[in-house]
Amino acid sequence: MPPTRLTIGRDTTVCMSLAGRPGTFGSRFHNHLYAALGLDYIYKAFTTRDLPSAIGGLRAFGIRGCAVSMPFKEACIPLLDTMAPSAAAISSVNTIVNDDGRLSGHNTDYAAIAPLLVKHGVPASTGFVSRGSGGMAKAVVSALRDAGFSQGTVVSRNEAAGRALASACGFGWQAEATAAPMLVNITPIGMEGAPEATELAFPEALIAEASVVFDVVNLPPETPLIRRARALGKTVITGAEVATLQAVEQFVLYTGITPSEAQIAAAADFARG
Amino acid sequence: MPPTRLTIGRDTTVCMSLAGRPGTFGSRFHNHLYAALGLDYIYKAFTTRDLPSAIGGLRAFGIRGCAVSMPFKEACIPLLDTMAPSAAAISSVNTIVNDDGRLSGHNTDYAAIAPLLVKHGVPASTGFVSRGSGGMAKAVVSALRDAGFSQGTVVSRNEAAGRALASACGFGWQAEATAAPMLVNITPIGMEGAPEATELAFPEALIAEASVVFDVVNLPPETPLIRRARALGKTVITGAEVATLQAVEQFVLYTGITPSEAQIAAAADFARG
Repeated sequence: MPPTRLTIGRDTTVCMSLAGRPGTFGSRFHNHLYAALGLDYIYKAFTTRDLPSAIGGLRAFGIRGCAVSMPFKEACIPLLDTMAPSAAAISSVNTIVNDDGRLSGHNTDYAAIAPLLVKHGVPASTGFVSRGSGGMAKAVVSALRDAGFSQGTVVSRNEAAGRALASACGFGWQAEATAAPMLVNITPIGMEGAPEATELAFPEALIAEASVVFDVVNLPPETPLIRRARALGKTVITGAEVATLQAVEQFVLYTGITPSEAQIAAAADFARG
Repeated sequence: MPPTRLTIGRDTTVCMSLAGRPGTFGSRFHNHLYAALGLDYIYKAFTTRDLPSAIGGLRAFGIRGCAVSMPFKEACIPLLDTMAPSAAAISSVNTIVNDDGRLSGHNTDYAAIAPLLVKHGVPASTGFVSRGSGGMAKAVVSALRDAGFSQGTVVSRNEAAGRALASACGFGWQAEATAAPMLVNITPIGMEGAPEATELAFPEALIAEASVVFDVVNLPPETPLIRRARALGKTVITGAEVATLQAVEQFVLYTGITPSEAQIAAAADFARG
């Protein structure tokens, strides 16, 4: 159970999210940290059918920050004033920061990838095969390239999107995964509620040959791919780690405050609880 | 101390206020009642420099309701879809209700006046002198007329505004107050922070001759005029009663729920605490 707040006043700072289908993680994570740190902030998840008016309202109300999810990550760009390098690198915004009416676009998914690879001791010389060609794949593959990873292959069902992503990042494309020291899943395979929720994103033989398995799927925190890789003693990086670290990056952008590891862990536990 | 809430989620309904200088009463009153009644609502006070974008944001975010204060009470009218009789009667909106994107303007200040006169047993045959010619005076004097009061005189420093208000309502105008059974103050005289905070809105002799003294000033709850009238045993109606009742009317418009007298009293106490 999180700490609680008594009042929402005229001086309370508001952060929010805009998503086609709002989730619960952001609200619970940010509100928990606000309460734990005694910050006079609230966080509210919204959806909208009118993105330009929503961004106009964000300015008009002086909302401090806004998480942006599908289907608004690219559509919001023309409505902003500036783009941070993290968002400009991939033309995709998952976070808007409002500094006195000046809106800047950021991408904390992109920003979270390199620190996680460092944390898990994965050197940039590691070859990888990634699977997926959607918006999140663009963020992850671009972040790998920008972190110095040069030996990579993009695998995707959508050949056009996969080839475009691979070529934009200087990697090759393949229709099917082959062996590599690091396997990276950036598809919904293994995701709660997806048609392939119970499937492995990579064949068992490839998991056995890999050293590192990185699954961007966040729910459940332990996907079939992650469970299998753990059982085989591989280094694993989970989507839950990505989701938490990108939310921390948002929190720092909004408040200027870096929470402790213990505070982050408590908020993430509450957000998933 | 009010009940508290643990989480603000994607399904939490948001109500808000727009004011040039937001106060604290609305936030505290509404949030207290939401918590006391276990409603998944929050209330947040905002100001804005861009009213059209704020109203656009209200629609885009699906905000359920919005209290409107100076200087937006008339400016918001062209941005709405419909006007309730309470607001149309005086061309002034203090409350916006959003029904699935359809915005209606209401005036709960106007709506609160007649019930308070009934509650205090003041018949419509009572002659009155009112003082003031601003937006709130328009609401109160119009409500008196619409409640059947026909013997009235408007007093104001601003002769043009006072004459316009008096003539619109079928009353006379005077530069100075004279004796009447009911005295109604609708100026900032006696208001906390106003230049005339310590002054009486009517001369002592007129207070002594009156039966009913009605002060629309809300802060402090006991103005010099109210204190003097109480000391003389007069029937008094306070601005605190107006503020509370109009907030209850807003609450009912937003939630469809009528709180109990005890719940209202607890919320009003907290809001002023």
